[in-house]
Amino acid sequence: MNSKDGFQWTEQGGLKQGVPTIGKIQPKSNLSSTDHIFDVIIVGAGYAALTAARDCTTSGLEVLLLEARDRIGGRSWSSNIDGYPFEMGGTWVNWGQSHVWREISRYDMRKELEISQDYSHGVNEFSLMVSGKTSSWTHDKEDAVMESAIKKFVNVDGQYGRLVMPFPHDEGHNPAVLPYDRLSAADRLSQIEDTLSAQEHACLKGFILLCSGSTLDTMSFYEFLHWWALCGYTYSGCIEYLIKYKFRGGQSSFAINFWNEATSTNNLSYSFDCPIATVEDDGRIVFATSEDGRQFRAAKMICTIPLNVLNTIHFSPPLSAVKQQALNIGHLNQCVKVHAEVTDKDLRSWSAIDTSSKLLYALGDGTTPAGNTHIVAFGANETHLDPEKDIVATTQILKDLVDMDIKRLVFHNWSEDKYAKGAWFFPGKEFITVYSEALRARHGNIFFASSDWAVGWRSFIDGAIEEGARGAMDVIRELRIVRHSL
Amino acid sequence: MNSKDGFQWTEQGGLKQGVPTIGKIQPKSNLSSTDHIFDVIIVGAGYAALTAARDCTTSGLEVLLLEARDRIGGRSWSSNIDGYPFEMGGTWVNWGQSHVWREISRYDMRKELEISQDYSHGVNEFSLMVSGKTSSWTHDKEDAVMESAIKKFVNVDGQYGRLVMPFPHDEGHNPAVLPYDRLSAADRLSQIEDTLSAQEHACLKGFILLCSGSTLDTMSFYEFLHWWALCGYTYSGCIEYLIKYKFRGGQSSFAINFWNEATSTNNLSYSFDCPIATVEDDGRIVFATSEDGRQFRAAKMICTIPLNVLNTIHFSPPLSAVKQQALNIGHLNQCVKVHAEVTDKDLRSWSAIDTSSKLLYALGDGTTPAGNTHIVAFGANETHLDPEKDIVATTQILKDLVDMDIKRLVFHNWSEDKYAKGAWFFPGKEFITVYSEALRARHGNIFFASSDWAVGWRSFIDGAIEEGARGAMDVIRELRIVRHSL
Repeated sequence: MNSKDGFQWTEQGGLKQGVPTIGKIQPKSNLSSTDHIFDVIIVGAGYAALTAARDCTTSGLEVLLLEARDRIGGRSWSSNIDGYPFEMGGTWVNWGQSHVWREISRYDMRKELEISQDYSHGVNEFSLMVSGKTSSWTHDKEDAVMESAIKKFVNVDGQYGRLVMPFPHDEGHNPAVLPYDRLSAADRLSQIEDTLSAQEHACLKGFILLCSGSTLDTMSFYEFLHWWALCGYTYSGCIEYLIKYKFRGGQSSFAINFWNEATSTNNLSYSFDCPIATVEDDGRIVFATSEDGRQFRAAKMICTIPLNVLNTIHFSPPLSAVKQQALNIGHLNQCVKVHAEVTDKDLRSWSAIDTSSKLLYALGDGTTPAGNTHIVAFGANETHLDPEKDIVATTQILKDLVDMDIKRLVFHNWSEDKYAKGAWFFPGKEFITVYSEALRARHGNIFFASSDWAVGWRSFIDGAIEEGARGAMDVIRELRIVRHSL
Repeated sequence: MNSKDGFQWTEQGGLKQGVPTIGKIQPKSNLSSTDHIFDVIIVGAGYAALTAARDCTTSGLEVLLLEARDRIGGRSWSSNIDGYPFEMGGTWVNWGQSHVWREISRYDMRKELEISQDYSHGVNEFSLMVSGKTSSWTHDKEDAVMESAIKKFVNVDGQYGRLVMPFPHDEGHNPAVLPYDRLSAADRLSQIEDTLSAQEHACLKGFILLCSGSTLDTMSFYEFLHWWALCGYTYSGCIEYLIKYKFRGGQSSFAINFWNEATSTNNLSYSFDCPIATVEDDGRIVFATSEDGRQFRAAKMICTIPLNVLNTIHFSPPLSAVKQQALNIGHLNQCVKVHAEVTDKDLRSWSAIDTSSKLLYALGDGTTPAGNTHIVAFGANETHLDPEKDIVATTQILKDLVDMDIKRLVFHNWSEDKYAKGAWFFPGKEFITVYSEALRARHGNIFFASSDWAVGWRSFIDGAIEEGARGAMDVIRELRIVRHSL
């Protein structure tokens, strides 16, 4: 079934909005009336919400899930087209990411992983654009130069960050790390620029913009250090964790397990196409009112609305001043991700960085059943691209990276998506060290759960599951105490 | 409160059996009668059982937990003596171990970790005994020689195992790895012995016996390869995952969270000091009979009894022939772990390998509140030690490693423990590749869950939680279907 989300372009079909996904839920609601007072309303249907819904329903709570879209998955969903999954957002996972891997193991999907890179045939090269000139390297050289550059970038302590951030899941363990949140990536680059070759500079810029989807001037160096620590303080770890292992059947083949388990309890009510406008908490009951005026009630709420969207919701009583401040600042990631299905078999083992392009990082990501190569390309906010606005231009941007014969484009414009307003979380300077606690804080009977303020793999699917579990646990604990005291 | 488990020796008090632990549960039972038919009986109270009990009770099932001992934790528990936790069994954890880390995150214990090694003061040396001569090295040299030796050992494919075992959590992904299960560690050593220096040989032998607690002649090389893959195919990964991060308050401070959550549901009945003798399944009801003749009933059973003990239980109908075969073979790990509290402050940064000693691997593991150094030492089955049988001899074995002034010894003799019959799982040749499936298979209404046959971090706390979650999920799913069909 087609979701309204996403775009597909083919020569024959032209540009079409909406792509098929097994994450589309039909019928869109199983609610007969809005009279019932639920134990908990969960707003959203991404991994945080799915985890919370699964945990709450299996714990016997009566849950109402309200989602603005027509599908589950939030910022991580896949569209299966002609037997091949295109990942519209969050894609890669790793067994070192505890929350997501625990679920992969639990849903017996450990054998469902495949590797994006395939260097067994084809051009087997990395193309780097520096000062208008393209160099073609082996992937081994790509790794060596990239590693050298990133290590200079993160080596603030002579131990490549291990000294200032020894515990990636307790990032402020050594308070000496905190001042690095006052540096942007550009600030840090200026400290080391005399030590970087032009090639290293280009590789590094490409990589950090791939991570942040924002701009060098604005993105927090501290947050990049955190990614680096999570990746085991090595470049090989970055590849292993960030961009290597994905689901053979796509993200939605994973997400659907959470959904099915939650519905199997008979404790899950839901309504899709149901964006929330206002949330009121009278101290006893939380009232959620949809944009079309329906009102829903529950004892508690777990709100998983993304950071960049939260300030469009009216809360009564109002959120704390510091939380509102954080929401008004938001995060910076306006990454654009474009999939191209191309007939060029040789490009399966190609990758490229061209920081002058609106799609600055690209790689061969798979082979379709038709035998075509699947290329994925990323752009950041340095030079923002809305791919659907000029498909000819988008096509040309890809072809400028390398000559390719494009049969299909698939993408989701996260920046123009009013329920996301951006891609995965990436903060500016002095955001996470200032607002983390406020973002994680409850507001009366309302609990907030999102990867955007996870402790560990913040910004990742793993972080969403971490947060969904936290939200559910808080609600379950509190309702259990209430019930025992009755 | 003192458990009956464990031993402590001090000069003043002499040798005493039983040490204090917060893992002791009192009263030992909350059962009023044995009339009730439970949803599920869980046998055991280690991490597999605790996870299963937590998951089943929070899912609304009526659970009866039956445990032979007087405490929770199974082969992982800590004794807090004079304000310092001694880890009697499983100790170290890492955020890359998904199941245990998910729980650490969930129970908000991410800031409770500390690092065993402290090289900031003291002798700062590694002592290696080779051919009757002791060398003293820096820890950097220890790491370099150890890494060089282990890399030779695992490099069966020119890629240090990455080629033959590319997915550590899907270990047989490349079937080319399976023949390595026909090699013992000694077999593999003989293939590379010409490439090893005597020092490398000693380091390697110390390390692999530390991992297996068995003998070079008997232990499976394949299983060591699996450990290596799990540790990220690097020696630094081995240190990070196997022997670095532990709980400030000890393992029992972690385990108690599972217990408290399960009991908070009011769905948990339990009886400690209740070893099970027979298990009968009439196809509808599972009957568990304790050694003292009490009979308990449930629709399902999750049996977490360790591999080496399972063949002491009478099952009716009998277990499959292949499962029985596996139980009769069992695993090999007869590791002994001895803690010494010593006045020598300088030994905090000391470590040692002496493969001619009955305690062949030792290191400074902490500083007690009294300012003493805590040394932990391990022995394997090459030269087995029962520490309590001759305390003077045990003391002398430690002093032969390095001169130390011993104030206290603490240990658990896992080999003599009839509810464990060994330490963590480590198999002989052609065991795991032959019997894994049989060990994981259900038997009618009885599900088996143990770290001893986990898919991922088999032998580890992480594997126990993985398995407990699997067992609970299987039972919950099945009972949910039954109920919906009523």
